[in-house]
Amino acid sequence: MPQHDWNSFKELLFIDPESSLTLDISRSGVDKEFLETMQAPMAKAFAAMDELEAGAIANPDENRMVGHYWLRNSQLAPTPEIRQAIDDTQERLVDFANKIQEGYIRPEKAERFTHVLLVGIGGSALGPEFVADALKSVSDPLKIHFFDNTDPDGMDRVISEINGDMHRTLTVVISKSGGTKETRNGMLEVQNVYDRMGLKFGKHAVAVTGDGSQLCEYAKLHEWLSIFPMWDWVGGRTSETSAVGLVPAALQGLDIGGLLEGAADMDKLTRSKNIRQNPAALLALAWYKACDGQGKKDMVILPYSDRLCLFSRYLQQLIMESLGKEKDLEGNVVHQGLTVYGNKGSTDQHAYVQQLRDGIDNFFITFIAVLRNRFTSSMEVEEGVTTGDYLSGFWQGTRQAITESGRASILITIPEVSAYSIGQLIALYERTVGFYANLIGINAYHQPGVEAGKKAAGKILELQGKVIAAIQAAKESISVEEIAAAVGEEDVEKVFHIARHLAANNRAGIIQDSITIDGRFLIDPRLV
Amino acid sequence: MPQHDWNSFKELLFIDPESSLTLDISRSGVDKEFLETMQAPMAKAFAAMDELEAGAIANPDENRMVGHYWLRNSQLAPTPEIRQAIDDTQERLVDFANKIQEGYIRPEKAERFTHVLLVGIGGSALGPEFVADALKSVSDPLKIHFFDNTDPDGMDRVISEINGDMHRTLTVVISKSGGTKETRNGMLEVQNVYDRMGLKFGKHAVAVTGDGSQLCEYAKLHEWLSIFPMWDWVGGRTSETSAVGLVPAALQGLDIGGLLEGAADMDKLTRSKNIRQNPAALLALAWYKACDGQGKKDMVILPYSDRLCLFSRYLQQLIMESLGKEKDLEGNVVHQGLTVYGNKGSTDQHAYVQQLRDGIDNFFITFIAVLRNRFTSSMEVEEGVTTGDYLSGFWQGTRQAITESGRASILITIPEVSAYSIGQLIALYERTVGFYANLIGINAYHQPGVEAGKKAAGKILELQGKVIAAIQAAKESISVEEIAAAVGEEDVEKVFHIARHLAANNRAGIIQDSITIDGRFLIDPRLV
Repeated sequence: MPQHDWNSFKELLFIDPESSLTLDISRSGVDKEFLETMQAPMAKAFAAMDELEAGAIANPDENRMVGHYWLRNSQLAPTPEIRQAIDDTQERLVDFANKIQEGYIRPEKAERFTHVLLVGIGGSALGPEFVADALKSVSDPLKIHFFDNTDPDGMDRVISEINGDMHRTLTVVISKSGGTKETRNGMLEVQNVYDRMGLKFGKHAVAVTGDGSQLCEYAKLHEWLSIFPMWDWVGGRTSETSAVGLVPAALQGLDIGGLLEGAADMDKLTRSKNIRQNPAALLALAWYKACDGQGKKDMVILPYSDRLCLFSRYLQQLIMESLGKEKDLEGNVVHQGLTVYGNKGSTDQHAYVQQLRDGIDNFFITFIAVLRNRFTSSMEVEEGVTTGDYLSGFWQGTRQAITESGRASILITIPEVSAYSIGQLIALYERTVGFYANLIGINAYHQPGVEAGKKAAGKILELQGKVIAAIQAAKESISVEEIAAAVGEEDVEKVFHIARHLAANNRAGIIQDSITIDGRFLIDPRLV
Repeated sequence: MPQHDWNSFKELLFIDPESSLTLDISRSGVDKEFLETMQAPMAKAFAAMDELEAGAIANPDENRMVGHYWLRNSQLAPTPEIRQAIDDTQERLVDFANKIQEGYIRPEKAERFTHVLLVGIGGSALGPEFVADALKSVSDPLKIHFFDNTDPDGMDRVISEINGDMHRTLTVVISKSGGTKETRNGMLEVQNVYDRMGLKFGKHAVAVTGDGSQLCEYAKLHEWLSIFPMWDWVGGRTSETSAVGLVPAALQGLDIGGLLEGAADMDKLTRSKNIRQNPAALLALAWYKACDGQGKKDMVILPYSDRLCLFSRYLQQLIMESLGKEKDLEGNVVHQGLTVYGNKGSTDQHAYVQQLRDGIDNFFITFIAVLRNRFTSSMEVEEGVTTGDYLSGFWQGTRQAITESGRASILITIPEVSAYSIGQLIALYERTVGFYANLIGINAYHQPGVEAGKKAAGKILELQGKVIAAIQAAKESISVEEIAAAVGEEDVEKVFHIARHLAANNRAGIIQDSITIDGRFLIDPRLV
């Protein structure tokens, strides 16, 4: 049961006198005594973070340094080479964005680039999507679009939205290895669009990728406009302040200086060894308390600002991919994790606050309130009351209602949604994840569990080729079981799904004779 | 541990021979024996649903009938008056949309309406937003936008996106009672935009609301273009096939006939008393098994289609607001619920499948695969392989990977994303929620927990007025504690948040002298 009185609030409140950002964990279940008992574990987490920032191999499984904090203050980089690489890249990408916006670098058959199409997935899209949506305005010099999946219909939709402006569109392909299939597919699809328009893809393309990657070689070979680096010491989910986030943001005309400054200032605050003065330490301890250090409660992210609606999707990766681990650092099976969901308030109040107030107590809410909620003047919707007063009233009212029913919550307030405050939030959560991972003894910087699905998908595609061949080789029609026998596949269900996929898309002229579990597959010669 | 072999798959698979929609619960933990043991509880659920469809007071707390199934087949309505009301409304809204699209009903100062702005929240926005995004195309006669919150900055963003087309924009205000503050605020804000442009709001406005509501009276008084009904026997979260969903969809040019037909056909299928042939019964039982009938696992919704990305947000309300209840029908405290989250595959694989595969086992996934994944021809991204093959391969691969690590899942396949299949999905989940609620013995059709937060918010706004007065009355500056004492408010923290909100927005010229917990508030005469 969370505490709730003015004294405990004042006692635990973190307030940044520079930016006015606040963090209140007094309703998370944390109290002074708990903070006291966590002094020693937090001291270890501080020490581990110091080592990480100094260039230790903080990701032991992959034998890598973890350097996203250097991106905001290259003075901290462990080698002059890394410092130089950070500084040069930032300078180069600002210069590139300026030249694009001012028309010095022009598309092949137009005066100026007016649209950006980002091709990426996961860490190469979630940060850029969040930041773009939080900070976009109709006066941005370039309008941004995303291919963040391998859904062909989804790609067709994006292209149709760009509509007559494809020849004024700069495509940014982001992939560390260049081996991510969704991104590779998106790149080939968009290249095909330029090709069909008689435009040279390379004249409209820029890459953000690891040196020497497949994508890097491809971009060089086809003379793309530029290539920006991804380094092995920056993980995908902590890459928003690297070229991954900065290139699209700079092109869109966002204030990347403000973003980096906000992150740098938050980094400074969260290096404090005094728990009470360190918002990342406080937040990590609130998570720990609220979910018992075992992910027993879900984290509901409720920002009261339309601009922050995608923050929860960004945090899903940052938090769940970092913390959702089978084993701890000593190799014990722990099945850790911390589930994140949410969209925005007060909208979500009308979706699921019923359950949060009355139903299963399997969550804690993080309210994120934005103090300044309009950049223009406001009409009154009632005497002395504005739309923004209601927005403010609703987070307070909902917080009170869930506190009354004994549910835990955390409150963050930021003065306004700006590049600076977005930088602060990103840096705050990055370091909180690092501290929390240390408290529970796991490696926050690898993702060993994502390979199995990719490998299995690769085998499905191999099998698909064999299924096509088996249907083609059949004299008339062939059943799922017969195909499985013909291709030597024991898992008949796989063949069932593959054959239905092929028939639905008439791949190689394949159709199905009846919509039943025993439906047979054959080639319709008219479709070949 | 879910089963997984061809025989159990075949045994449990539901396949609709008409539409080819399939439901596979063989990996949810359900087996033949479990289905056998659930025959009697399901028989009760079937009987209760029959009564509900026949017009029983299925929502006892609010003494209401629950009639969303009649909307798709008015022949089933319990009275001739209700049947007539459904038929008339559908006919009238189709006629209205045609007249708008064809320019018979015109804006005050333009030839034709080209944009729709929907003002609504919760059940008055989530369905329309989901359907609009799933089915939209650049060739739609009217482009749709949403005010779904009381965020003034968010409203400004929407208006700036509509940009030069406000005079061609038809505003649809949706609120059953007309008393929902977010919607009322959105309406007043948009009315203000028309006013400033010298346009008569009523000439650009249509309402969907209950007969005699505040909104209904307002719309009549100001001679709005039309008013469509919301009935007390249709709940907000099951209103997509009422005027709430149909008016915006028809205006946007979507195939509402297909939507209703898909829902009607699914209703027919899910009236079967044979569990094996009833996909809603199978799905409800899979939920029950996967989460122990107590919401012990979260439901992750992973549609492999960009068009279905908002389905999880729609389902959050439908499922969590229906099932998240403190008490069962007998008054026992049960704290029920079923948490829903997810966005889309394969995108989400790159965000949190790491946790789903390796981490805490607190979820079950519903994969939704769309068989036909492009409406145009596809290039090959590798020999014999398309982008769509990858999308199909990824859901199969991820499903296999999580099955291997013992996680439960459900699979739904639909032939394509169309108005018909969207209608099927909506009706499938509506009835599944009804069955599941019966299995756990709760009222799925009320939402008693949402009032507390609204009331508390109202009190915050009252208090805000007093806080403004106290700061105005102060000779110089005044502290939070002093304000609280002056207005007689014991909860000082409330005053703190209100005062900071006022200062951040310079309401009534209020500023704060320092950004600390003890910062004092005062009036800056230059800002008044």
